[in-house]
Amino acid sequence: MNQPPTIGDVRVAAARLSGRILRTPLLTSPELDEHAGSRVLIKAESLQKTGSFKFRGAMNKLLCIDQNSANGVVAFSSGNHGQAVAAAARELGMPAVIVMPVDAPRIKVEKTAEYGADIRFYDRRRDDRVAMASKIAVERNATLVPSFDDPYVIAGQGTLVLETLEQAAHFGVPPRVLIAPCGGGGLIAGCGLAFLEAVPSGSVYSVEPAGFDDTARSLVTGIRQRNVPDAHSICDALLIDQPGALTWPINQQNLSGGVVVTDSEVQAAMGFAFRALKLVVEPSGAVALAAVLQRKIKLTGTAVIVCTGGNVDPDTYARAIV
Amino acid sequence: MNQPPTIGDVRVAAARLSGRILRTPLLTSPELDEHAGSRVLIKAESLQKTGSFKFRGAMNKLLCIDQNSANGVVAFSSGNHGQAVAAAARELGMPAVIVMPVDAPRIKVEKTAEYGADIRFYDRRRDDRVAMASKIAVERNATLVPSFDDPYVIAGQGTLVLETLEQAAHFGVPPRVLIAPCGGGGLIAGCGLAFLEAVPSGSVYSVEPAGFDDTARSLVTGIRQRNVPDAHSICDALLIDQPGALTWPINQQNLSGGVVVTDSEVQAAMGFAFRALKLVVEPSGAVALAAVLQRKIKLTGTAVIVCTGGNVDPDTYARAIV
Repeated sequence: MNQPPTIGDVRVAAARLSGRILRTPLLTSPELDEHAGSRVLIKAESLQKTGSFKFRGAMNKLLCIDQNSANGVVAFSSGNHGQAVAAAARELGMPAVIVMPVDAPRIKVEKTAEYGADIRFYDRRRDDRVAMASKIAVERNATLVPSFDDPYVIAGQGTLVLETLEQAAHFGVPPRVLIAPCGGGGLIAGCGLAFLEAVPSGSVYSVEPAGFDDTARSLVTGIRQRNVPDAHSICDALLIDQPGALTWPINQQNLSGGVVVTDSEVQAAMGFAFRALKLVVEPSGAVALAAVLQRKIKLTGTAVIVCTGGNVDPDTYARAIV
Repeated sequence: MNQPPTIGDVRVAAARLSGRILRTPLLTSPELDEHAGSRVLIKAESLQKTGSFKFRGAMNKLLCIDQNSANGVVAFSSGNHGQAVAAAARELGMPAVIVMPVDAPRIKVEKTAEYGADIRFYDRRRDDRVAMASKIAVERNATLVPSFDDPYVIAGQGTLVLETLEQAAHFGVPPRVLIAPCGGGGLIAGCGLAFLEAVPSGSVYSVEPAGFDDTARSLVTGIRQRNVPDAHSICDALLIDQPGALTWPINQQNLSGGVVVTDSEVQAAMGFAFRALKLVVEPSGAVALAAVLQRKIKLTGTAVIVCTGGNVDPDTYARAIV
C-alpha cells in the first residue's frame, strides 16, 4: 500500500489495534478552560503504552508485516517511535533494531533498551539516519518502519481521534477544533482525516516548535519548506527537516493553519500540566497545550488538544516546573 | 446524621455528585504489573478536580448543608481537604474559611487561595486546629466540614469505588483487592464499604507512612492507637494523630491489614509514577503504589490501588524523581 491512507484505513486500524493499545482518557480541567478561554478536552496519549501515541502507528504497521518473518524490524527515531517499535516488536516476538541520536533523552534510550531492542546511535549533525537504517534493513532482510511517512503508521495514529470522538460524546458538547503537535506530520495527518470525516465543518491546527515550523511555512507558501540546519529546540521529538512526502498532501488539504510556540512557552505548558493537570508531559507533548494556554488560536467551540507523550528526563522536567 | 454511613449512603452520594465531580480514569500499565507481580488497576484520583479525591467528600457534604445559608463553611486541613472545600464552596456560592498548617506545601496554600477561600494558619506543634476551626465556625455561624470523621464525607469518598468497579468491568478481570492510603481513615472507610459490598470475599488494605501507622497498630491491638508526637514524614496529607471515632469501627471491621511504607519507598514510587505511569503523584498519594511496588501485600488476584492526589511542590517532586 503506497497510496495515502483513507478514513477506511483508520477504521480498519482501530479494529486491528483493539485490545492491543490502551484506551487513553479524555480529560477536562476547569482551570485549563479558564486559562484557554474556551472548553478544552485533553487526549492524554502520554498515558498510552510506552508513554506516547507512537505505539498506535507502530503496532498497526507491525501487525501488517508477515508474522512468519523472523527477520524483524528496523526503525530510526529520536526516541518515542523507537520505544513504540521496540515494545510492539517484543509483544509480537520480532527482533528490533532502533537507530537513535546520541543526544536522545536518557529515559528514551533506557526504555527502548528495556523493551529488548538492539540500539545503534547516530550523530544528528554528521550521520544520515535514513541511510543507516536502510542499510541495516537490507543486511538483515528486515522491514523498515518509518516514523511518519507510511500509510499504516498514519492510519494507526488516526485511531486516537475515533476514541476521542466517542469519549467526547459523553461530555455533551461535540468538539469543533483539533489541535495536535506536528513533526513529520504523521499524527496530524491521521487525526485530521478522522476528525474532518466526523466534523466536516471543523478545524484542525498543527503546532510546531520555533525553528522547526516547516509545516506552518509550507501551509502559507503552498510548497514544502525546509528548516535551517542549525535550529535548536527542547522539543526533541519534533526536530524534523521538512514535511513528509506522504503526510504533506494530506495536511495541506486538511489543516486550517500552523501555529508556532517557543521553548519558554512549552516549559510554561509543562509546568501548567504539572501544577493543574497532574500529567507528566514531555516538551514535544506539550506544544498543543502551550498553543491554547497562549491563546494562539481563536477558539469558536470546544477544542481537543493531544498531549502526545511523557518521556522526559528528570532534570529537563525539573527545570520546566520550578 | 450521626450514624456511620452505609452502602446506601455511598449510592446516594454518587447520584448527588453526578455531573459535579470528574469521572477519573482507571489506568493499567504493563510495567507496573511486571514490578508488582500481579495485575494492578490504578484509580487516578490525582486527576480529580482540585488534584485529589477530597473533592468528592467535600462536595457531598456541602450539598447537604442548607443552601440558603450565607454563613458558609469552615475546614481545617493540611491542604487537599482545604482545597476541596474551597473549590466546592466556590461552585456553590458559599464563603469558606480554611485553617491550614504554616508548613503546608506551597502549592496547596496557593491553590486554596485561588479558589477564593479565607486562609488562617496554625502551627502543627503548638496550636489546636480543631479548637481554632470550631471557634471560627461558632463566631460566623458557619458549618464545620470535617476532613474524615463525617458520614457525608466518608460516603462521598466511597463513590470512587463505585466508579472503579464499573470501569474494571471493562478490563474483564474483577478486582479482588483494594489498597488505599490512610490518614484519618475516611477514604478507606467509604471505599471499603463499597468494595466489600460488591466483592464480599475481597480484601481491603490501608497503607500509612512510617511513624504514622496508627491504623496498622490499632488493627493489630484491637484498640485505637496514637502516634508519637515528634514523628516526621514527607506524606504531609497523612500526618494524623489517631484513627477517627467514626472511621475506626468501620475500618476495624473491614480491613484485612495495615501496611507501612517509608519515605524512601514513597519517593521511589513517585519516581516510578513519573517514569512509567506519567502521573504526577504527591507523597501521600503514592503510598499504595509504594506498597505494591515493594510487594508488601501478597496479591492473589487483580488489585486496585488509589493514587489519591497530585498536589506537590516542584522542589519536593524534583528530589523524588531524580
